[in-house]
Amino acid sequence: MSKHVFYHAGCPVCVSAEHDIVKLIGEQDVEIVHLGDEKEKVAEAENAGVRSVPALVLSNGNVLHINFGASIDDLKN
Amino acid sequence: MSKHVFYHAGCPVCVSAEHDIVKLIGEQDVEIVHLGDEKEKVAEAENAGVRSVPALVLSNGNVLHINFGASIDDLKN
Repeated sequence: MSKHVFYHAGCPVCVSAEHDIVKLIGEQDVEIVHLGDEKEKVAEAENAGVRSVPALVLSNGNVLHINFGASIDDLKN
Repeated sequence: MSKHVFYHAGCPVCVSAEHDIVKLIGEQDVEIVHLGDEKEKVAEAENAGVRSVPALVLSNGNVLHINFGASIDDLKN
């Protein structure tokens, strides 16, 4: 099974959700991507269906938008 | 540890998220509450901080609002 990917942007809402998600799923099963630090992955996230962060893209392709930190559009600049 | 509680209202967004969450966390660790069928639990959910469904209230008290199916206010009638 491929990993789940958790996209965030370092915002307080994101960090809190990250801790919760890692605890729920287990660190070994989730890849964490900070879109503020890794701008080149914004397009990858958007193609996966991410419209806001924090978001969890599951290995089955489903996207869970969790709470609301920032719009993906705000991460493009 | 007390269980996590997943609140939903039977909407398509909710059902999809429910399947994903149960798969992620494991059925034995999450209680599923259908607020459309269990109206008396709407107040309980609201007190826990649920503002929309589907939402996952973690055993640590944090609330993860997952995608957006319906506002909690729409479930009060």
